[in-house]
Amino acid sequence: MPLLKQIAEQIRDADNFLVLAHVSPDGDALGSMLAMGELLDTLGKKVRLFNESGIPRRFEWLAPKREILTQLPEEEPDNLIVLDCGSAERAGDLIAPWLKTKKVFNFDHHLGNPMFGTVNWVEQRASSVGEMVGMLARKLGVPLVGLLGEYVYLALISDTGDFCFNNTRPETLEMAAEILRLGLLPGPFHEQKQSTGTLNQLQMRGTVLQRARLYADGRICLISFTRELFEQTGTGPEDTEGLVNTVLYVSGVQVAISLREEDQGIKFSLRSKGSTNVQTVAFRFGGGGHRNAAGGTLLLDMDQAKTTMIQAVTEELANS
Amino acid sequence: MPLLKQIAEQIRDADNFLVLAHVSPDGDALGSMLAMGELLDTLGKKVRLFNESGIPRRFEWLAPKREILTQLPEEEPDNLIVLDCGSAERAGDLIAPWLKTKKVFNFDHHLGNPMFGTVNWVEQRASSVGEMVGMLARKLGVPLVGLLGEYVYLALISDTGDFCFNNTRPETLEMAAEILRLGLLPGPFHEQKQSTGTLNQLQMRGTVLQRARLYADGRICLISFTRELFEQTGTGPEDTEGLVNTVLYVSGVQVAISLREEDQGIKFSLRSKGSTNVQTVAFRFGGGGHRNAAGGTLLLDMDQAKTTMIQAVTEELANS
Repeated sequence: MPLLKQIAEQIRDADNFLVLAHVSPDGDALGSMLAMGELLDTLGKKVRLFNESGIPRRFEWLAPKREILTQLPEEEPDNLIVLDCGSAERAGDLIAPWLKTKKVFNFDHHLGNPMFGTVNWVEQRASSVGEMVGMLARKLGVPLVGLLGEYVYLALISDTGDFCFNNTRPETLEMAAEILRLGLLPGPFHEQKQSTGTLNQLQMRGTVLQRARLYADGRICLISFTRELFEQTGTGPEDTEGLVNTVLYVSGVQVAISLREEDQGIKFSLRSKGSTNVQTVAFRFGGGGHRNAAGGTLLLDMDQAKTTMIQAVTEELANS
Repeated sequence: MPLLKQIAEQIRDADNFLVLAHVSPDGDALGSMLAMGELLDTLGKKVRLFNESGIPRRFEWLAPKREILTQLPEEEPDNLIVLDCGSAERAGDLIAPWLKTKKVFNFDHHLGNPMFGTVNWVEQRASSVGEMVGMLARKLGVPLVGLLGEYVYLALISDTGDFCFNNTRPETLEMAAEILRLGLLPGPFHEQKQSTGTLNQLQMRGTVLQRARLYADGRICLISFTRELFEQTGTGPEDTEGLVNTVLYVSGVQVAISLREEDQGIKFSLRSKGSTNVQTVAFRFGGGGHRNAAGGTLLLDMDQAKTTMIQAVTEELANS
């Protein structure tokens, strides 16, 4: 029997679920968790949601009707559904004991998921775990309407960068089309999702872009976030998200470097276009990641970190 | 007979086309024009492309193989296909005489198109004219593969803001899915499309964001572009695009105002969320547009223009 059908039958036969996603959840983690909650609720199951770090500020607009527990519930569930966790550790420390004693459904799309569940469904081709929840809903005969549709849609657009990344499959767009046909209005949805920034955040980001500089004949673009700037603008590390991608898209740039002052040292994030490998650079300094997106921490001050990273990336560009 | 089928048959029966789109073409105008060229070429027709203002700098990456004429060709065509022109004037001055003497196919999606063609196909529900060209290609049995698919896709994402705007229909996403299934890779495509900015442009935009200010208890956000800033950064009016939308998305903001110094006075652009009407504000000052996006010109200096627009928008907010 195909795996998805098996899983649908096991879900239909079971009851009393705790659904969870990785700590510091992104749009796919939150969206797939909330969607799974709606799906199980529609099927008449007892379901609770759990995330050790709760809802990040930038997703507060979601205002889910169903509570997201940040502590384990007193009443123990029979089944755990663990979403978007590339490893068991990503689910957080609190849930760790139950991962060993409960029936665990491990639904994920990460390369190299170690299959830590009782039942493992790992679709590397899926754009998002939300897309997988959508597939499961179809298999169970539940239409992607209302909140279920909204949550799946949030997951789809979050992990595909609004359908711009290469993980956007025809099937991903077809699922989004189905959700729109069942009533979701993309305009207001995106407006809500995007209207979470403050003027301070915008001004901080403006300052960082204004100070962006090119190196290595325009092939490297570097931005930096200092503690001083955070203090002046009342912003913080969570407001830096995505800006490194913006500077990567400057014409001629091959690698974007983002440096951020932390209490201890400098956090670096690297992004590259095409075949340029920034994972190897991050690895040299004890960090990690993927070919086109990697990062780590340097126990240096900002000026030293700049010099060090520009030199290391320049060397990598010479080799690639 | 349904209109699309009639048009497909007329296109199949005709030959020697000049395909054109509105002056200062956007992604839909260019994409639908280039796609129409590919489609007619596939059908074995003689086809030339014309746009009075040529290819804007930010679309130079398209590097179309087929020349886009900026002057009328000496050899006269039998048929004109006019794309994405809400009125005949939008096609530019050069083509005006031929609009009266040739057979004119008027393909458009604007509300209020005055049906200036010999054959008029105006689909207000279509996300883009590119989507209409895609529908025509299907009707003619030509698959959305290769360059034809790329050009239609460019039109789709351009006019829907990467599928974020409300004009994104299920059919729009299904057409994009079809194009992906036939081989288009969204990652490299978006990378090419986005990698057209310069560091100067980024820095100029950073400065403008840094200087953004709130008014009317945070319901108005105002940005301004001065000639001085353009000169300092070697940028110009064409580099301001879209920034007014960015500030509209600040939490709590209902209206975004963008002011730009011109040789004569100040060009203003207004964007609003939801039911707030900025068209009425623009109209008061001799401008025009739609409920959520409008603009015009004020024969004032920058300080006067700021005071005037903030007051007018504040009044509109009190009424809405």
